[in-house]
Amino acid sequence: MAELFPPIRAGMIGGGQGAFIGQVHRMAARLDGDYAWVCGAFSRNADNNQATADGLGIESARAYADWETLIEQEQRLPADQRVQLLVIATPNHLHVPIARAALAAGIHVFSEKPAGIDVGEVAALAAQLDSSGTLYGLAHTYLGYPLVWQAQEMVSQGALGALRKIHVEYPQGWLGKAGDNAGAWRADPAQSGVGGCLADIGTHAFTLAEFISGQKIDQVCAALGRHADARQLDDDADVLFRTETGVSGTLIASQVCTGEENGLKIRLYGEYGGLEWQQMAPNSLIHRRHDAPQRCLRAGIDRPGLYPVAQARLRLPGGHPEGYLEALANLYRDFAKAIHQQAAGTPAGVPGIQAGLRGMAFIEAAVRSHRDHQRWVALKTAA
Amino acid sequence: MAELFPPIRAGMIGGGQGAFIGQVHRMAARLDGDYAWVCGAFSRNADNNQATADGLGIESARAYADWETLIEQEQRLPADQRVQLLVIATPNHLHVPIARAALAAGIHVFSEKPAGIDVGEVAALAAQLDSSGTLYGLAHTYLGYPLVWQAQEMVSQGALGALRKIHVEYPQGWLGKAGDNAGAWRADPAQSGVGGCLADIGTHAFTLAEFISGQKIDQVCAALGRHADARQLDDDADVLFRTETGVSGTLIASQVCTGEENGLKIRLYGEYGGLEWQQMAPNSLIHRRHDAPQRCLRAGIDRPGLYPVAQARLRLPGGHPEGYLEALANLYRDFAKAIHQQAAGTPAGVPGIQAGLRGMAFIEAAVRSHRDHQRWVALKTAA
Amino acid sequence: MAELFPPIRAGMIGGGQGAFIGQVHRMAARLDGDYAWVCGAFSRNADNNQATADGLGIESARAYADWETLIEQEQRLPADQRVQLLVIATPNHLHVPIARAALAAGIHVFSEKPAGIDVGEVAALAAQLDSSGTLYGLAHTYLGYPLVWQAQEMVSQGALGALRKIHVEYPQGWLGKAGDNAGAWRADPAQSGVGGCLADIGTHAFTLAEFISGQKIDQVCAALGRHADARQLDDDADVLFRTETGVSGTLIASQVCTGEENGLKIRLYGEYGGLEWQQMAPNSLIHRRHDAPQRCLRAGIDRPGLYPVAQARLRLPGGHPEGYLEALANLYRDFAKAIHQQAAGTPAGVPGIQAGLRGMAFIEAAVRSHRDHQRWVALKTAA
Amino acid sequence: MAELFPPIRAGMIGGGQGAFIGQVHRMAARLDGDYAWVCGAFSRNADNNQATADGLGIESARAYADWETLIEQEQRLPADQRVQLLVIATPNHLHVPIARAALAAGIHVFSEKPAGIDVGEVAALAAQLDSSGTLYGLAHTYLGYPLVWQAQEMVSQGALGALRKIHVEYPQGWLGKAGDNAGAWRADPAQSGVGGCLADIGTHAFTLAEFISGQKIDQVCAALGRHADARQLDDDADVLFRTETGVSGTLIASQVCTGEENGLKIRLYGEYGGLEWQQMAPNSLIHRRHDAPQRCLRAGIDRPGLYPVAQARLRLPGGHPEGYLEALANLYRDFAKAIHQQAAGTPAGVPGIQAGLRGMAFIEAAVRSHRDHQRWVALKTAA
Repeated sequence: MAELFPPIRAGMIGGGQGAFIGQVHRMAARLDGDYAWVCGAFSRNADNNQATADGLGIESARAYADWETLIEQEQRLPADQRVQLLVIATPNHLHVPIARAALAAGIHVFSEKPAGIDVGEVAALAAQLDSSGTLYGLAHTYLGYPLVWQAQEMVSQGALGALRKIHVEYPQGWLGKAGDNAGAWRADPAQSGVGGCLADIGTHAFTLAEFISGQKIDQVCAALGRHADARQLDDDADVLFRTETGVSGTLIASQVCTGEENGLKIRLYGEYGGLEWQQMAPNSLIHRRHDAPQRCLRAGIDRPGLYPVAQARLRLPGGHPEGYLEALANLYRDFAKAIHQQAAGTPAGVPGIQAGLRGMAFIEAAVRSHRDHQRWVALKTAA
Repeated sequence: MAELFPPIRAGMIGGGQGAFIGQVHRMAARLDGDYAWVCGAFSRNADNNQATADGLGIESARAYADWETLIEQEQRLPADQRVQLLVIATPNHLHVPIARAALAAGIHVFSEKPAGIDVGEVAALAAQLDSSGTLYGLAHTYLGYPLVWQAQEMVSQGALGALRKIHVEYPQGWLGKAGDNAGAWRADPAQSGVGGCLADIGTHAFTLAEFISGQKIDQVCAALGRHADARQLDDDADVLFRTETGVSGTLIASQVCTGEENGLKIRLYGEYGGLEWQQMAPNSLIHRRHDAPQRCLRAGIDRPGLYPVAQARLRLPGGHPEGYLEALANLYRDFAKAIHQQAAGTPAGVPGIQAGLRGMAFIEAAVRSHRDHQRWVALKTAA
Repeated sequence: MAELFPPIRAGMIGGGQGAFIGQVHRMAARLDGDYAWVCGAFSRNADNNQATADGLGIESARAYADWETLIEQEQRLPADQRVQLLVIATPNHLHVPIARAALAAGIHVFSEKPAGIDVGEVAALAAQLDSSGTLYGLAHTYLGYPLVWQAQEMVSQGALGALRKIHVEYPQGWLGKAGDNAGAWRADPAQSGVGGCLADIGTHAFTLAEFISGQKIDQVCAALGRHADARQLDDDADVLFRTETGVSGTLIASQVCTGEENGLKIRLYGEYGGLEWQQMAPNSLIHRRHDAPQRCLRAGIDRPGLYPVAQARLRLPGGHPEGYLEALANLYRDFAKAIHQQAAGTPAGVPGIQAGLRGMAFIEAAVRSHRDHQRWVALKTAA
Repeated sequence: MAELFPPIRAGMIGGGQGAFIGQVHRMAARLDGDYAWVCGAFSRNADNNQATADGLGIESARAYADWETLIEQEQRLPADQRVQLLVIATPNHLHVPIARAALAAGIHVFSEKPAGIDVGEVAALAAQLDSSGTLYGLAHTYLGYPLVWQAQEMVSQGALGALRKIHVEYPQGWLGKAGDNAGAWRADPAQSGVGGCLADIGTHAFTLAEFISGQKIDQVCAALGRHADARQLDDDADVLFRTETGVSGTLIASQVCTGEENGLKIRLYGEYGGLEWQQMAPNSLIHRRHDAPQRCLRAGIDRPGLYPVAQARLRLPGGHPEGYLEALANLYRDFAKAIHQQAAGTPAGVPGIQAGLRGMAFIEAAVRSHRDHQRWVALKTAA
C-alpha cells in the first residue's frame, strides 16, 4: 500500500506536545508514507495546540480549539480537503463520544485503547458502527507484531493441537515507586472507567490472549491491588480465567513490579506443542514440541518458516530488529489499505470494536469478581 | 565439612536400579565424600534389591527385604557400624511411616518430598521429632541452590523494601502427551495423597516462595486441572495467594505445558527492587531497581556481590556452571555437618519438617479451594 | 527537530521499487517528519523509475532518467523548490561521482556506505567537501543506535580504564548457500571496489570499533576467503588488528556463516571493565566489572544510567523495542538538524567523510595484507 | 559402569588443601562412586599433605612426602591394595616426569592439561605409552560435556555439510586487574613452558575445535599479549588458523577480558548449517540452517534429537542443569570403564596423549608465529 496512493488526510484529538502517545502515533503513521497530518485539536492549552500544529506543518485554521469544533468545521471543507481519519489520543472517557461524533460525520476513527469506559457505551458505538459505512480501529499495538500473527496462524492451523493452557502477563514497574502517583487521569475513575492497570495494560494481555488463541475468555476470577494510598483504581491484577472451550490459564498485569519495563509475554500450550512470545524480544517465537527439539522462528522477510500473515508485516531481513513503532505502523498500514479499498467496519488486520467490546467486558468482569471476593464472573459484551 | 570427617553411614529405602531419584540422591551424597552407603531396602523386587546393593559395594546381609527389617536389624549392629542416616525415596504414602520408625530407632532421616500425604500424619511426625534428638531433612533440592540463598538474604536485608508481589511458576510438559499416563503411583491418591502435580512440583514452587520471601502464604484460591481421562489427581494448578502480611501473587504448577522441562522460576517485587531467578539458568540472579540499571549477580566463589550464605554453597569459580546435583549435594553437606555437630531437629541449611508441614497445608488448602469453586482457603498446619 | 521545521526537500539516486535499501532510507527519513521526497532518479528502468516516483507522490517531471539530469535540472528550479538533500543508494562505484556532482551543485549528500571504491577518490571527495559549504553523511546505520553512543561515552569517560582489547564481529549467512551467487554487483570489483564482504559489512564492524573505542586502527593482518567459484571478491574475512595506542583485537566479517542473520557484535575490555553490545539485541548494553556484578544498561527514555547522547537518540520508554529503522532515522534526524542550522561539513551525530575514508583504508589494507600472506599492513587514508 | 564394580584405588599428586583443582578432581571422581582415594603426595608442605590425607580418610602411611616416594612405595604393596590410577594435579613441568614414572610402574595416569611443557617430552611420553599397557587420560574437561559430543557427532554425520569456518574463543578476566600477577607458577616459563594463557586456556579452545570439527588445525598466525609488566608469559592470544582441509577461522584466548568468567564458546559453519555451543550455558546447542528455523537441542536424558554419545553422558532429565563437575565426572566414568575392561592406551571417551601432543604443538607454533611477527607456522607434533 505504502508508496502507491496519495496520502490519507489525518487529524488527531489529544496528543499535543509533551503527550507521549500522540507523537508515537504520528511516527508510526508516517513510517510508510500513507498519511498526511492536516488538522488537530491537540490540546485544551491553546499555545500547545498551536505549537503542535506548527510543528506538523498544519495551517493555523485547522488547529481547532476542541474536538467538537474540529468535526464541525472539517465537514464544511471540500471533500478532497477534509480530514478522512481521526486519531483519538485523549483520556479514556472521551474515546466513545469523539468516535461516535466522527463516525456520524463520516470520518474514519483510529482510537487509543481501551475503546471506552464501560460496556454500555462501547456496545452503543459498535451498534452505530454497524450501520455507518466508516472504519474503526483500535490501537492494540501489540497485535501489529509480525510474530504475533505467526503465532495466531500456527494455533489456527493446529500446530499445538487442542489448546490446554494459556499464560499471559504484562508486568510494568513505573507506578511502583513509593509515593509516586504518576498517571493522574489514569487513576481517576471519571476519566478512566472502573479499571486502572486493568484498562491500561490488562486489556493488552487479554486481547493478545484471545487473538492468538482464537478463543473467547468466558469467565474470570480476579484479585486486584492498589499500592499507593491516593490511588482510586487498581495498579495490579492477578486473574484466573477459562475460555469457552474450557482452556484455563492466568493473566497477570501489574504496574508495581519494580524495575520491569513492558514485559508483555504469552505462552500457549496444546496437546502437541507450546508457543512463547515476548514483546521485549519480539523478533523471536519459540515453538516447543514433545518429540522434536524446540525451534526458534525468527522475524525477517528472508527467514524460513513464516506464514504470509507474518511476512506481510515485516519490512527488513532477519537480524535487523523491528520494534514497537513498526508494529503500530502495521496497524496504520492496514488501516490505509482499507480506506483505499473503501471498506467499512473493522479494517482487516486491525483490532476493532469487537476487540474493544471484549476488553471492556474483561475489565468489568474482573472488577466485579474482585469486589465479590474472587467469585467467577462471566464476561458480558452487552450492558 | 567435606574431606574432614570419616564418612557417615547411610542407607536408602527405595531407589533401586531403574528408580531415577535414588541414583540422584546417591550421586549428590557422594560429591563431597561425606557419606558411605552401608545398607538399603532398595526394592521389593529381590533381584533388583540385591543388584543395587552389589553395585554400591554393600554386603548382601545389609540389603534388606523391606524397610521394617532394615530398621530392626541395623539396631542390632554395633554402634560404630550401624546406619546413621536413612534416605527415603519411596512413594509418598510411606514417607511418614518410615521416618517415624527411623527416628524412633535413633536414625536420622532425609526424606524425599512431600513430607507425607496429609497434614495430620506430618504434624504427628513433627511432634515426634521435637522430642527425638535426631535430625530430619526434606529434599527440597531447589533450596540448595546458592543464588536462592542469595535472594533470600537480599530480601531479608531489605534490598527490595517492603514486598508487594510474588510470582512463582513451575511448568513441566512430560504428562502432556495425549494418552500418556506416566507416573502411575503419582496419580494414585492412596500412594500420593490428594495432590498430583500440586504435590509433585507445586510444593517446590510454594516452598521456594516462602523461603525467599520469608513470608508465610496464608490463603489460596486454586483452580486445578486434569488433562487425561484416566488420571485421578490434578496435573495442573493455577493459584492466587496472599501472605500473612498482605503480599499477593500467583503460583502456577503444571505437568501439561508441552515442551517445558523444569521451568521453576520466581520473581519478587518490593518498593525498591525486584529479583528474578530461574532454575534452568541457576547461576544468574537478576536484580532490578527503579533508579539504577539492572544487575546480574552471578554464581562463583570469586564473583562479587555475594553474601556468605551463597558463597558457602559454591564449589567453583564463576563461569563453570553448577547445577541440580550440586544443589542437592549442598543439602547433604549441611546435613552431614549437623550430624558431626550432634545437632537435633532440622539441620541448619536444610529444609525440614516445618517446610514439609507447610507444603502439606498448601496441598490440602489448594484442593479444598478447587473443590469449593475457588473459594479462598486458609492454610492449616494442624489437622 | 522533528515536527518543528518545514520538511527538507529530498531526492534519491537508485532505490527504485524492488531495491530494498531505497525503501529502508525512505522509511527512516519519514519517521520524524523531517523530509519530503520531491525528486529522484530511482532506476535506469524507466517504468520502475516512474512507478517509484508515483508511489512517493513525486510529480513526473521530477522523476529523472539519470542522476546527471537530476542534478542539472534541479538547479534550474527556484531555490525554495529545488532539492536540498540527495540520498545515494546506488552500487558503490557511483557513490563518489554522484556525491561530487551534488556537492558542487550545493546539494547536501547522504550516501550509502562504503564512501567509494578506493582511498584515492574518497580522499578527493573529502578535499572537495572541506571547501564546499555543504553537508555530507554516510549511512553507517549502526552508529545511530542509542546504546552505541552510550558505549562510546562510557569508554570516553574512562569507565573501562585504559583499553586493552577489542573484539568485533559481523557474521551473516546469506551467501553461504552452495552455488548461490546472490548480490551480483557486490561481487563485481568494477562496481564494488576491491572488497566484497569487507566493503559490505567489514566496514560496519571496523567503523563501530573505531567509533566506540575512540581509537584509530593502525595496522591489520587479514585472511580473506571466497567460498563460491564464481565470486571474484571475498565473502569472508578474519582480521587481527592493532590500534595507534597498542590495543589489539580481532575483526571477523563473513557472509558464509550459514544461518546467521546480522550478528554484528562488539566487546571492549579495559583495566577496570568490559562492554558488550549486539545489534540483534540493541536495547541492552552489558557492562562487566572486576569488583561489582555486571550491569545491563537498557535503552528507554525513562531508563536509569544513560548519558544524554543515548537519551537523545531514543523515542520510547524502556521495554518498547526500537530497532534498525529508528537507528537510521537518528542519522536522518541529526542530518536535518544540521541543515536547519546551516552547518557545513559532517553533521554532528552522523558518520561522515572521515569515517568513509578510514573504511576505505581498512578495505585496502586488508586486501593488501591478504595478498601478501597476512603481512601487517598500515592503514593509509591518502592514496 | 557406576555402581557396578568395586571402586578403583586412586591417588593424587598435588592438589593439597587450598589447591582448587585437586578438590575439583576429587569431587568429579566421587560422583559416580567409581573411585576410592587411597594415597597421595598432595603437597610439599608436610602439614598440608597430612591434613589433606586425613580429610580423605587416607591412612598416614600412604600420605607420601613426594611423588617419587609414592610410586616407589605403592609398588611394594600387594596388588589388590596398591594404587591403580594416579591423578596429576601439579604445575605443568612435572606432568610428564610423573606420568612417565607412573606408567613405568604400571599405574594408570589421569593428568591435568597441558600434557607437558614441550612437544619433545610429550612425544616421548606418547612413545612410552604405546608400549606400556597402561591407560593415560588428559583432563580436557570441556570434552566431557554431553552437547560437545552431540556437536561432534552432528558434524561427523554431515549435518553441516562441508565445513567452512570455525570460530572458537575463551575469554577470562581474572588476570586483568591492574597490578595483579596472580597465578605465579603459571607465569613462570620454567614451570609452565612457553605458553601462559595459551597453555592455560588456549589449549582448551584448540582441543575443542579439533574435537568437534574432526579436523586438524594445520597452521596458525598468532598475536600474543602481556598486560602486566612482571609477567613473562602471554596473558592473551589472538590467532588465525587453517585446517588441513582448508577450513579457516579464529581462536581467541585471553585472561585480561575484564569481567569475563569462563566464556569458552565455539561456532562452526558449513554448507548447510551452523552450530553454536557455549560452556557457560552448556545444556543448549544451537543449530542454524538455511531453509528451516534454528533449533535448540537441549541436554537431558529425555530430550529429543540427541545422539547416543550425548545421552550416555547425561544423568538427569532436561531442565535440571548439569555442569562442569558432571563434565569432568564423565571423563572419570569413561576412564573407570576402560580400567574395568583392562584396556590400554587412551580410554574411549577421554582425551588422551594425542590431544596432549597436538595442544603442545599448538602452543609452540603460536609462540613461534608471534615471535616471528605473525608468520604462518605449521603445527609439529614431533620435536
